This record gives sequence, structure tokens and C-alpha cells, in this order.
Amino acid sequence: MSTNQLDKKSEGWSALFSEPMSELVQRYTASVFFDKRLWRADIAGSLAHADMLAAQGIIGASDLAAIQRGMAQITQEIEGGQFDWKLALEDVHLNIEARLTQLVGDAGKRLHTGRSRNDQVATDIRLWLRDEIDAIRGLLRELQAALVDVASRHVNVILPGFTHLQVAQPVSFAHHLLAYVEMFARDEARLGDVRSRVNLLPLGSAALAGTTYPLDRERVARTLGMDGVCQNSLDAVSDRDFAIEFTAAASLVMVHVSRLSEELILWMSQNFAFIKIADRFTTGSSIMPQKKNPDVPELARGKTGRVVGHLMGLITLMKGQPLAYNKDNQEDKEPLFDTVDTLKDTLRIFAEMIGGQAQADGSKAGGITVNADAMRAAALKGFATATDLADYLVKKGLPFRDAHETVAEAVKAASDRGCDLTDLPLETLQRFNASIEADVYEVLTLEGSLQARNTLGGTAPAQVQQQIARHQARLSGA
Amino acid sequence: MSTNQLDKKSEGWSALFSEPMSELVQRYTASVFFDKRLWRADIAGSLAHADMLAAQGIIGASDLAAIQRGMAQITQEIEGGQFDWKLALEDVHLNIEARLTQLVGDAGKRLHTGRSRNDQVATDIRLWLRDEIDAIRGLLRELQAALVDVASRHVNVILPGFTHLQVAQPVSFAHHLLAYVEMFARDEARLGDVRSRVNLLPLGSAALAGTTYPLDRERVARTLGMDGVCQNSLDAVSDRDFAIEFTAAASLVMVHVSRLSEELILWMSQNFAFIKIADRFTTGSSIMPQKKNPDVPELARGKTGRVVGHLMGLITLMKGQPLAYNKDNQEDKEPLFDTVDTLKDTLRIFAEMIGGQAQADGSKAGGITVNADAMRAAALKGFATATDLADYLVKKGLPFRDAHETVAEAVKAASDRGCDLTDLPLETLQRFNASIEADVYEVLTLEGSLQARNTLGGTAPAQVQQQIARHQARLSGA
Amino acid sequence: MSTNQLDKKSEGWSALFSEPMSELVQRYTASVFFDKRLWRADIAGSLAHADMLAAQGIIGASDLAAIQRGMAQITQEIEGGQFDWKLALEDVHLNIEARLTQLVGDAGKRLHTGRSRNDQVATDIRLWLRDEIDAIRGLLRELQAALVDVASRHVNVILPGFTHLQVAQPVSFAHHLLAYVEMFARDEARLGDVRSRVNLLPLGSAALAGTTYPLDRERVARTLGMDGVCQNSLDAVSDRDFAIEFTAAASLVMVHVSRLSEELILWMSQNFAFIKIADRFTTGSSIMPQKKNPDVPELARGKTGRVVGHLMGLITLMKGQPLAYNKDNQEDKEPLFDTVDTLKDTLRIFAEMIGGQAQADGSKAGGITVNADAMRAAALKGFATATDLADYLVKKGLPFRDAHETVAEAVKAASDRGCDLTDLPLETLQRFNASIEADVYEVLTLEGSLQARNTLGGTAPAQVQQQIARHQARLSGA
Amino acid sequence: MSTNQLDKKSEGWSALFSEPMSELVQRYTASVFFDKRLWRADIAGSLAHADMLAAQGIIGASDLAAIQRGMAQITQEIEGGQFDWKLALEDVHLNIEARLTQLVGDAGKRLHTGRSRNDQVATDIRLWLRDEIDAIRGLLRELQAALVDVASRHVNVILPGFTHLQVAQPVSFAHHLLAYVEMFARDEARLGDVRSRVNLLPLGSAALAGTTYPLDRERVARTLGMDGVCQNSLDAVSDRDFAIEFTAAASLVMVHVSRLSEELILWMSQNFAFIKIADRFTTGSSIMPQKKNPDVPELARGKTGRVVGHLMGLITLMKGQPLAYNKDNQEDKEPLFDTVDTLKDTLRIFAEMIGGQAQADGSKAGGITVNADAMRAAALKGFATATDLADYLVKKGLPFRDAHETVAEAVKAASDRGCDLTDLPLETLQRFNASIEADVYEVLTLEGSLQARNTLGGTAPAQVQQQIARHQARLSGA
Repeated sequence: MSTNQLDKKSEGWSALFSEPMSELVQRYTASVFFDKRLWRADIAGSLAHADMLAAQGIIGASDLAAIQRGMAQITQEIEGGQFDWKLALEDVHLNIEARLTQLVGDAGKRLHTGRSRNDQVATDIRLWLRDEIDAIRGLLRELQAALVDVASRHVNVILPGFTHLQVAQPVSFAHHLLAYVEMFARDEARLGDVRSRVNLLPLGSAALAGTTYPLDRERVARTLGMDGVCQNSLDAVSDRDFAIEFTAAASLVMVHVSRLSEELILWMSQNFAFIKIADRFTTGSSIMPQKKNPDVPELARGKTGRVVGHLMGLITLMKGQPLAYNKDNQEDKEPLFDTVDTLKDTLRIFAEMIGGQAQADGSKAGGITVNADAMRAAALKGFATATDLADYLVKKGLPFRDAHETVAEAVKAASDRGCDLTDLPLETLQRFNASIEADVYEVLTLEGSLQARNTLGGTAPAQVQQQIARHQARLSGA
Repeated sequence: MSTNQLDKKSEGWSALFSEPMSELVQRYTASVFFDKRLWRADIAGSLAHADMLAAQGIIGASDLAAIQRGMAQITQEIEGGQFDWKLALEDVHLNIEARLTQLVGDAGKRLHTGRSRNDQVATDIRLWLRDEIDAIRGLLRELQAALVDVASRHVNVILPGFTHLQVAQPVSFAHHLLAYVEMFARDEARLGDVRSRVNLLPLGSAALAGTTYPLDRERVARTLGMDGVCQNSLDAVSDRDFAIEFTAAASLVMVHVSRLSEELILWMSQNFAFIKIADRFTTGSSIMPQKKNPDVPELARGKTGRVVGHLMGLITLMKGQPLAYNKDNQEDKEPLFDTVDTLKDTLRIFAEMIGGQAQADGSKAGGITVNADAMRAAALKGFATATDLADYLVKKGLPFRDAHETVAEAVKAASDRGCDLTDLPLETLQRFNASIEADVYEVLTLEGSLQARNTLGGTAPAQVQQQIARHQARLSGA
Repeated sequence: MSTNQLDKKSEGWSALFSEPMSELVQRYTASVFFDKRLWRADIAGSLAHADMLAAQGIIGASDLAAIQRGMAQITQEIEGGQFDWKLALEDVHLNIEARLTQLVGDAGKRLHTGRSRNDQVATDIRLWLRDEIDAIRGLLRELQAALVDVASRHVNVILPGFTHLQVAQPVSFAHHLLAYVEMFARDEARLGDVRSRVNLLPLGSAALAGTTYPLDRERVARTLGMDGVCQNSLDAVSDRDFAIEFTAAASLVMVHVSRLSEELILWMSQNFAFIKIADRFTTGSSIMPQKKNPDVPELARGKTGRVVGHLMGLITLMKGQPLAYNKDNQEDKEPLFDTVDTLKDTLRIFAEMIGGQAQADGSKAGGITVNADAMRAAALKGFATATDLADYLVKKGLPFRDAHETVAEAVKAASDRGCDLTDLPLETLQRFNASIEADVYEVLTLEGSLQARNTLGGTAPAQVQQQIARHQARLSGA
Repeated sequence: MSTNQLDKKSEGWSALFSEPMSELVQRYTASVFFDKRLWRADIAGSLAHADMLAAQGIIGASDLAAIQRGMAQITQEIEGGQFDWKLALEDVHLNIEARLTQLVGDAGKRLHTGRSRNDQVATDIRLWLRDEIDAIRGLLRELQAALVDVASRHVNVILPGFTHLQVAQPVSFAHHLLAYVEMFARDEARLGDVRSRVNLLPLGSAALAGTTYPLDRERVARTLGMDGVCQNSLDAVSDRDFAIEFTAAASLVMVHVSRLSEELILWMSQNFAFIKIADRFTTGSSIMPQKKNPDVPELARGKTGRVVGHLMGLITLMKGQPLAYNKDNQEDKEPLFDTVDTLKDTLRIFAEMIGGQAQADGSKAGGITVNADAMRAAALKGFATATDLADYLVKKGLPFRDAHETVAEAVKAASDRGCDLTDLPLETLQRFNASIEADVYEVLTLEGSLQARNTLGGTAPAQVQQQIARHQARLSGA
């Protein structure tokens, strides 16, 4: 067995280098302490590459067998926590390859034939990210399912729908929750689109220009379950679009989480008191003995900044970079890793906080507790059915704009008396418009208002039920 | 004809308001001076809404006819520059509706039946953005076509491929340009995905909860060429995902433009002198008489910041907003407008700057001028074929890692003598490895290196030609 | 009078250029339609430069007089709206210089001696920004004064202080408002620091390397009221730190505005109903007749995104730019202009919305209306004085951590009975700790709690009064 | 010794809580694994607080002694790596306090008298950040010193000054380096301003409203070396301006680093070959044996994105937060920690990469190597002295604008012949303007051009020497 270039890395990269890398520089440029997380993708990529090299006759069958044997052992070592990660070997790729060569000799050194770290790292990160996207999409479905589940139990609970945080019109609490199901469903679809641009194979692009070995790139793509191969070697090694695109999609997930969190926090505030979340999602205060704080939604709202920051960091990273691979690109990993971790933790915890924890009997317990009375009381505060009165007048023949003005006057009268529209006697209402009759009071109830909004996408219980059914079918589907 | 609420807006929103809006507040909150740009979408949306109201029997046929007549006149007025946009009427919607009511009376007031400005503005902006996305995708195809065209004329021009801006391996100039075609093709596809989430109808969601009128929302969607309807009214009026998603995709377009610009600027610098761009894309200096500056690529690189800034602004805008519509959302428009303008101008100008301007005879003139000699000279500087020597040794039986080390020593020897690898005599080369024979010199030429990278995605002219053919078919297709 | 280079710009920059700039490129690269806003700074800078050129004997006294005469006329033309801004002349500098040469001939052409557009534009933008910073600092003081004024009238109004939006401890409404005074005071100080780095003179750096004329740069700095001169010509023409630093400070202002807006919106929501803002700062709804929406704070909260976006854009712009001046830098202006406009409008409107409008008699009217009863009722909801009970127990000798736990149990008991701590009979309280005596009830009142927090920075009325006095002295001072 | 609330945290926060925090939530909300880094500040703050409590008679002298003894032991345990950090105790504060109470009993429980975790964490982070700012300012001075040192040895080395990356005018390499000294000096000053707003004491604000104990906050500030106390308790616990302001200043540092990196990378590229950096700051390639890549500047350029991302994350975090403390704020720490680490590593490594490593004899070795010949050759390429010819003509009496045009024609003539301006015979030059005489050739040399720019801030060696002297005095001063 010949000398191994990798063994001498601590003395300098090659004969060209007159001195080893300084300790400080080694720490600054090394990635092994974060990119070792890619080990499983790295080994999968190497095995697919070796399999193809052998199929193309570039390495022998015994080399392939040795590589497979070595990689099996390395997998065991890493899983068992015995693998000795070395800073001096810079990154996950060289660490694994150096160990492989220790274990199986020249066969290990042949593995790098026809590839470079540039296409290798691009392959690893794409493989890893593809699998994480699948996991995140699964968690998005769990969160949607939790929301649909709570919605299905609260179709007839009415809370004030707000615009501008002012009472606007009564809505079904289920309808409100389903708005978030729409958001997370879009996130799921969007991540599906991102996946299609992630799941392409850079391997075979070598350092930047392709390789002189007769590789079969499409075989490698098939082995790895990828949808195709990158068609231009320069682009393949320098492209980080997928990282930006993923982080942008992740930022939208977190924007949605931040909006939901904002509402959960509002709803838990004493002045709303619409819901409670279980004690195990709250914390107390070191000084105020009465406190139960909604730490989880607050922290999630705060973590939006973290993910958005990663998006901005990645765009800044790529701006103005000339082709092809530049070392700047190494900075793509930590933001991606942290984004994935943040999303997975947050989605998991939200699904449970809202929908509860699965119990032994398959039911769920511990999700949010709804205070329907407080919601109803709030809905009765701000003339929430004023629009219904306007619509009532339109049906009596008034143009909408006139009806709107008439109702404004009625609201002013009620407001001056400190009562609701329903508390105004018929004769008073008739003073605003003579066509008003006794049936108006039905229109002015919360239930009447709700029932009346019975078109596609509206808050009428019948519509909401249909949406719940649609979501249930969709979510049980996959 | 009855009094019109809109006529009295300068005195206060309705009977509820005790004083008119202050002048300063009016200017602060009004959007008409930027959102009037949406007028065509606003009218299209109103006509589709009116058509449906009539089909559902909510308004009469004569009302519909009056609305259509009024809108036709308003269209003429706006196109002719005679429309009197009023700040006091806040936005494009109220300006058009007030004028309509002036023109056709009560029919105009009936138009707003079953809708609200909340769903109206969401519909307008989606309709407008859908069409702009189509325009931008067209421009992306033009830029790709320009790049493919220049590539097709420079397949055999060799420049140094860089990694880390250090000479790495020789590549075809066409291959280099095609890397950008890949990027812009991804942008086109990504914007297609965005389009599918933009092109959905919010109208019919009214203020936030749906409406009490028996609307046929799917009819409206069909009339407007939309792919479907938003399924939840709260989400429909408060969602601005599409704006963020579009701006994220636009940021990626600009990141690609910034990378191409960086290279154009480098290539035009005297120390590279690889290309020239036509004088009409450059400017001089007010003080240095010899200057020709690549203003267009520099400015385009700078404009990346502008678009990324809009993305950050929009995310910040939406973070933590409770449901449903909040006035914050009005801030979605200016960033979208500016992003669209920046993209369209930049893509149009880049297509022409690179590929030239169409001439009377259909040919193009005035695109970039390539200095093949300067590229070749640069490719000969940095031992660009060292990898080829390593591959040569691997084919002689050395493990790759050993070959790499051997070549490093040869490079060191050549470097010490101040010559290229090809200038080392055979006996010198053989001192590094005895298996080296005279055929090595063929491997060490730029052309030999290029030809050798003949696998899918590689820089060999045969591969590049295939890619050009693929792109030409694709781009002529649609 | 000889030919003027500027007159021929439409044919090409100089003899070196074989074709004029294309129409599209002219529009893309021109800045005159936004940078004409700098005209006053441009003229001031030119006059100071000319004055120095004459003092140094570089131009003659008659040239100076001619330049002064020409500039006086140009000032009149611009102020009178008669100045003919030309796209073909690119920017404010060439437009003014070309007109000057038309008016005064060769003297006008001599003005550009020893300077370049690179140092000229850097000087203009710094001069302009310095004055805008002064204006913004003035508006920050007005807003502080408005907050202090409202605070001074509500020292004894008690609202629940929240942490985690949960009722925490009672606080004075004045104390709450003064928290924002601290923020805006920091903004004022921070902008003062920014000013010191803005107010330095680049002029005399010429294109990038200094000039061959014996300029007296310090004289020019003095004439323009600047604090000093930039010490390195390359840095002077390429530095845009001040734009980033200013926009970062502006982002903080807007973050503070967004926090205040969030609270104003919450406080106006029916479930809080703590305050009202005057009708002229609200709008109604096109569909819901009862609505009064807090449009101004919502829009201001949304505009945070706009300013933050500009900050991100400017950083992206400068990242990775090599020295010295690059055309990218032209993109610094629009974000700066929009940031300044947004800040000035927002601060002005907030000062008036909170503190009211100055009346004929010097008093103010129309600021926020405080509902002290609603605040008090809310403060009584969440065991806001629990910490006071714990402190009471500590004074009786319990370690704080034990007192905390004891009170938690008392809160649980009160919560179970649906009453406040003050409603628990003495014997019940004594069951939790025997040392509790009748004087405990005083401690448990809102007023008692407030009074007790009588250390520097605390919410006790005495402390709040001192802070108000301090702010009043500070704000009347400058 | 009584029961300790902290010991029971795993069972729930207090008697109010019916269940313990879930494992997942505990991990999600805990901060101990990153905030334990603040331990030294936490202990310092606690000791200062305890000292004041004793001085004010709130705790006894023996309690103070016990706390001091306990903290001394905890310090030893942490420094020795024996401290047992517990996730269940959430954060650094509770971990240390719980251990203290284990060690010293009730005295430990008394430590929290008159404070809350809200003001405690704000104090810790400010103390920590103040010290890190001091360290970073020191490193900025070291980097400046390295740049000045290299500059002092290369005053007469001439390279082409670029604008638009086109050759503009010759400049001294020292002058070019000093432009970066200006930037880093501004950074140092800006961080000094930030420090003044960081170094204020929140402690004594308790949870949000101040405390009922007679604290002497100014004594604590003095003990901790702080410049003053926060004047409003609500602001004190909720303010994170200092984190945003610090990260904005850090982003500017990294923008400067990115610009310098961009130039180092360009200068090392074979087509420039202006400088070399020592081998220990470069890496090779796993596939291309000839490569030496400037990994350090590339990575530093990439890390700009990381810091900018943190800035954007922090702004997003704070946008729209109501008062007072919210859990969102916990997310301030990781971005701050990573920003500080990135800055310190980057500045340290750049100082050494540019200026070299200190040797045993006090000299430095291993900094950048300058290739003066390559710089000179490049400066001779692009008619760098054309402006000098124009200035020459102005001194002969031409208005500048006419001289500019005349030189453009001369440049065109030289360019057509493929020679420099100095290669044109006198009679040819005279054809452009008759006043040109033989002394023109002196003006057209690089040295002549350099010498001529002898005004403050210009590139003339005499000016550069003065700047070097000024910087040396300034940097040796502090």
C-alpha cells in the first residue's frame, strides 16, 4: 500500500505547500464539526459512485467489495459513536475517505476517481435536504391534521372575526383555524416544488468541468432515488439556489407560525381569555407567583427571525460570486441545518400543543382548551352584525353604498345609547329606514350572521363542514 | 339617484366619524398614487364580478349593461390620460367606483354588492402579478436564447475555468455561458410554480367571512382565467404569501444576474480583457478621458440589493400579523411594483447587451465581443491541465490520491523553472513517475483536456453541442 | 466659447465612444429623476468648491462671480419649477453644470477643475443627509415631547403591566409611555453619532486618487459646516458606510414605532378598549358600517418592513465591492430618500396622533383619549399584586423562593374560587402563612403596589414624576 | 433549610401548574446549552447585587459572605469543568442559583430578592457584550496596525487604481491599504458609540415595574463598571436595541472584510498576480494538484452573510413586540454569540494573514508578499495617466471640459496604434493641442502622476507618509 496524501494533510496539502495550515486557520476553515451530520448522505453517495465505477469497469469488483465492506464498518463506527472525527481532515468527506483507506487500502484511494469534493459536497447536501424536506412535509401534514381535528370539534363556536384587530363579523372558530390549514397546505405544496429542484445529481461534474472517466451519471441518480442529473458541470458545483429556495419556503412556514403564535398569545391574554394551552407548554415567573406564560408560541414567533436571518445570509452569500465553486459556499451548511432543526422542532411542538398528545387508546389529550363563552361575549361587543343589517337593506332594494351609510347611523345611535344593534327597538330602526321589519332581529344574531355566509369559502357552518371533509380526505390520502 | 357615500369621503368615512381625515394622514394612508397602476386589473375584476352578479340574478341586466358601459368609458379616460385621480378617494378602487357611480348612477353603487375592498385588492394584485410573471418568464426565455446564441458561436473558444478565482481547468466559453442558461431556466420554472399559487381567486371572500349573496365564485375565476378559488375567506383576504414567494424567486433571478455581472465586469477589466460590451452599454468618466465603464452590469449587480431588500421588507411586513386583513398589507404593493420593473428592465437590457439587437434582416448585432486569444493566454497560465496528468497516471494504474501527489511535485518543478507542465522534458516528467510516455503531451494541451471531459454535463465540445441543441429545442418550443 | 463636452453627451461620452447610449440603457442608468432632489446640496457644494478655487488662485475672481451668478439663476429656475431636467444629462450634477455653462460659458466649464462626479456625489449626499438627520432628530424630540405631555397628565392612571402579554404587575400609564420616550431618546442620540460620521467632506478626492490642483479642502469643509475632511481619497469616493449606518438607525426608530403601534392597536381593540385615537387618524370600511380602524398605526407598523428592506438592500449593495467607486453605488440614493421620507412622515403623524394638534391658544387637542376605567378593570384581572404578597412575606422573614411558592398556592385558591387575592378572607390567607396580618390588604391594592415600587426607574408615581421632570428639562433644553 | 422552589422545577413551575413541562418543550424553551456562556457575567452581576443588598441592609452580612463563598466555589467548578449543567433548570441563571442554594442554603434563596430573571438576563448580556466589544475593538486596532505596517513598507509601490474595475489612475499600494484602515477605524469608533449604549444597568427593574426593596442601583452600576442605570424599568427589561445596534456595526465590519477579501482574491488570481498570501492561509484541491486557493478571504467574504443574517434576524425578532418582556427575546443570544465569534476569529486571522505572525525577535513574518512588477505592469495598461494630460492642458489654459475631450482623442489615437500615451511622439500629441511641450512626458509617467496628487487625502507619497504617521501615532496611543 502506497503513501496516502490524506495522511499527510497536517504537513500541507501537497508537495506544493511549504508549510502546514495554521491552527487558527484550520479551525476557521474546517467544517467537520458541523458537516459530519451529512455522514449518511456522504456514504450513500460514495457507495452509489463506487457501484457505478465498477459497472463501468473503472474500478474492479474487488475494489467495490472492499469499499462496501469499509463503508459498512464506518457506518457502524459512526452509529456507535466510536468514529474519531479529526479537525485536521477538515470535513466529513476527507474524514470518511481517510478512514476508508485505513480500512481497505488502495481501493479506498480509488473511490475518488472521477469526482471532486466540489460535486461530492453538492450531492451530499442535496440528498440530505431532500430527506429533510420529506420529513418537514410530513410534520406540516400532522400540524394540519391537528388543526382540522380541533376545528371539527368547534364548528359552531363563534368568535369575533377581526380586521384591523377591530371586531368585524362573527366567524366560526373552526373557520378561523382552517385559514391556517390553508397556509400550511400551501407550505407543503411549495416544499414539494422545492424538492423537485433539490433532487438532482451534481456528482460527475467533478471539480467544475466534468471528468475524463466514462461515468454513467444517470445510473448514480437512479441508485440514489434522484429525479435527474444536473446538466452543466459548472452550474452543478456552484449552484446553491436550492438552499435559498428552501430557506425562503421555510421563512414562509415560520411567518405562518408567527401569525398563529401572535393569535394564540392574544387569545391567552386575560383580556381575551379565548383559549388555554396546557400547562406543559407554559412557564412561570421567577418573581411573579401568579404567572403562566405562553412561552412556546412566543419563542416560535421569535424563531421566525432566526430563519429569515438564514435566508438573508444565504442570499448575501451568493450575491456577486463568480463561477465556479468558491469557498464562500461552505457557509451554506449551518444556516440550512439550523433552519431544518427549527422547523422540525417547531412544527412537532405546535401539532401537539394545538391538537394534544396521542393517548394509549388512540385519542388525543392536552391540546388547546376553548372558552366558547368568552369568544361569544367578545363577538357581541363591536356591532359585528352591522354588515348583515346593510345586506338586509340591500335585499330590500337599497344600493349597497346607501345601505352602508344608513347602518352607520344606526350604529352611531346604538353606540350613543351604549347598546347593541339588537337592543334598538323596531321603531328606532325604522327611523333609519322604513323598510326594516321584525325579521331584522334574526339577521342581527351571531348565528344568523354566520349561517348567511353560505358561499364557497364562507364561514357558514355548512361550508366549514365541507372544508373539514375536504381536508380530512386530503390528509388521510397520502 | 341617492346620495353617494363616496362623495362625502372628504367629510368623514360615514356618519360614525366626527371629523374628516387630516391632510397629512390622507397622504400617509392613501395608495392611489401607486396603486392606480392596477386599474386594468381592477376593472377586469369588477366586470367579472358584475357579470356573475347578473347571472345569479343579484343585479339586473340593465345594471350590468350600465356598469359595462361605464367601465368602457373609464378605460378610455385612463388610457387617454384624462382620468382625474383623487387623493381624497384613497385608492384605485374607490376612484374607479366613484367615477362609475358618477357615470351610471345606482348601478355603480350596486357593483360593490357581495364584495369588499379586502377581497377586491387581493384579486387585483393577483391578476396583475400573474400577467407580469408571464412577461418576466418571456424575458427570461429571451435572455436564455441570447446566451445560447452566443454560446453556439463559441463552442471551441477555451477560457480558464476558475474555482476560487484560481485557474482550475480549461473550459469551453459556450459551456460557461450555458451554466447561466441553467440558472435562468430554473428561474423560469420556479416562477411557473409561483404562478400556480398566485392565480387563484380571493373575490367572494368579502371583508373576511364570505358574503350573504349567492355568488358563483367559480364563474368569476373562469372569466378571469384563474386556476381556482381561494377556499377560506379569512385566508383569502389576509394572505400575502404570493408576494413573498414571487419576491424570493425574483431575488434568485437577481442573484444570478449579479453573478453574471460580476463576471462581465471581471472579463472587461484590462487584466482579463476577455470580452468587450458595446459602447452603448458603457459610460465614460467626467474626469478620466480614457474610461469606458461597464455601467450596466455594475448597476444590475447593485440592483440585486434593491430586490432582496423588498423580499426582506415583505417578510418583515407579514411577520406576526393576526388575522384577518390589516392595513399593514397595503405596504405590499410598492415593493412588488419595483421588483417587477427592476426585473423586466434588467432582463431586457441583458438579453440585448449579451446577444445584440435585432437588425432589419433578422440577424443580431451589438452583443458581446469575445477575445479568444486573451482567454487562451489566460488558460495557459495556471497549470490548468494538471488534473489531466493525474488522470493519465490513474489510467496507468496509480490510485488517484497517489497520482495527485505526484503531479503536485511536477507542478512544483515547473513552477520553480517558471514554465508550464508541457515545457518539462519527458525525462523530467518520468522522474516523477516512470510510466509517463510521450503521449502525455497530448493530454496536457488545452484541447486535449477539453475533449477528454466527454460525459453528460462536461465541457467537451460534443457535450456542449448537445446541450445547445437541447436548449434550442426547448426555447423554440413554447 | 469653445465646444462643450456635455452638449454632445447624446452622441457619446467622448471621442472614444463609437455610438450613443441606447435609449433603454439611458433610462436604466440615469439617476436624474430621483437625484435631482439633491440640487440644493449640489449647488452649495459647487459654490464652496468655486470659492476655494478662487481663493487658491486656480480660477479667477471673475470666473467665481460668473459661477455665483449662474448658480443664483439656476436656484431660481429650480425653485420656480422652470428648470428643464434632461434625461440625456444623466444626473443632477451634469444637468446643473450644463445649464451653468449655457449661462456663463467657460467659467462654468472651469468649475469641475480638481473634482470628479465621484467625490461630488459623495459630498452632495452627505450634505443632504446631514440636514435630514437634523430634521429627523427634531421630529424625534417632538414625539418625545408629545409622549411626555400625555404622560404628565396620566401619572396616576393604572394599567396592567404585561409580560408575555399576561397580566404581570400594575404600572402607571405614564410610566408605560415613558418607556417609549427612552427608546426615542436613544434614537436621537444614535442619530447624533451617525451625524458625526456623515458630516465629513469627500470633495477634493477627485475620481479616486486626489487631484493635481492645490486645493484647500479644509476651507471647503468649513464653508459647508462640515466637521472635517475624509482622509483617504479612495475611501472617500467608495465609502457608503454612512448610508448603511443611517438606515440601521432608522430601522431601530421604525422598530420602536412598530412596538408602539402594536400596543396602540391592541389598546384600541374592543377587548382592551384602553384608548381611542381621534377619528381623523382612522378609517372606515367599504363594507362594514360600524368600523373605525387604526389605519395609521397599522400602516406605520407595516412601514417598518420598508425601512428594514432598505437596510438589507444597502448592505447587499456594498458586500464584496472592490475599490474604488463602482456604478453599483448609484443605488444608494432611492433607499435613503425613501427612508428619510418614511421617517419624517411617520414621526410627524405620531407626534400629532398621540399628543394632539397645536391649537390657536397654544394648547393641544386631538391626541389619544385614555379610558382609565378600562385600564383599571384589566389590572384587576390577573392577580397583578401577587408579587407584592410575596415581597410582604419576605419582609416577614421568608426567603424569596419560599414566599414565591406560598403565594402560588394562594393564587391557586383564589383562582379556584374565581376571586382576587384581596377577596380572600384573612384566615384563609393565614392558612398559607401564619405571619400574614390585616395590613396585607393595603399591599394588595393597585395603588399600594404602585407606590411600593419607589426606586430609580420604578413605576411609583414619585419616580415617574421625577422622570417626567428630567425629560421636560432635557427636551426644552436644546 | 426550607424547601426550594427550584428543586421542584421538574414537577412544575409552582403550585399553579398541574403538570411538568414536556421533554420536547423543555428542550425547545431551555437556553442553558447556549447561555451558560454568560456564567461569568451572571456571577459578577449576582455578587454586585448581593453586595448592594447587604449595604442596604436587605440581607445580612453573613448572607453576603455565604453568597460570596458559594459563588467562589461555583466559579471553580465551572472553570474546572465539574459544574453539572441541568436542562431541567432551563438557563444559566437558575442553574447557578440552584447550585448556590445547595451550597449555602437560605442565603442563596435570598439572592433573588428585588430582582427577576428579566432584569438579570438583560444585565448579564450587557456585561458580556461590553467586554466583547472591548476585545473586538482591540482586534480592529491590531488589523489596522498590520495594514499600516504593510503600507509603510510599500509607499512607492504603484498599482492601478480602479473605478468600475477599469484602470483609472495610478495609486500607491500603501494608499490603497490605508483606505481599509479608514474603514476599520470607523468601525472602531462606531463600536465605541455602541458601547456607550450597552454599558448601562437594567438590574433593579425587576420583572418590569421596579421593586419594593430599597435598592441602590447606582452602587451596583459602579461595582460593575457601568456608565449608568437604565431609567425606565419597562424599557430596561424589554430593550434589545443594543443587540441590533451591535450587530449592525458588526455587519459593517464584515462588509469591509468582504471588500478587502474580494480584492485579495482578485489580486491572487493569475491574471492579476499582485500578491501572494502565505501557504498556511490557503488550501489545495482534492482533485487539481496545482491549486492553492485563497480559502480564508473567500470564507470571510461568505461569513458576511452570516452576520448580516443575524442582524436581519434580530430586527425581525423585535418588530411589533408589545411591552414588556416577551419570551421571543431569548432568541437574542445565539445571533449575538455567533456574531462575536465570527468577528473575533476573522479579525485575528486577517491581522496575521496580512501583517504576518510575530516572531521571537519581535519582527513579523508570513504576511502578504507583494509583486510590485505585476502591479506596475497592470498600471501601464489602461492609459492611467490620461487625467494627468488633461490637467496639463488645463494648466495651459483650457477649460477642463475641453481638455477632457482633447485627451479622449489622444487616447483613441494611441489605442488605435496599440500603444500608450507616452509612446506617442510629441508632434502627434501637438496635433491634438498645440500647447503641449516636451515636459508632458514627465506628467505621463506613473511616478509623475502619483507625485502630482499632493493634496490632503491624495495618493502622493508625501501625503501617504503623513497618513501613516498619523495612524501610527493614533494606534500606539491607546
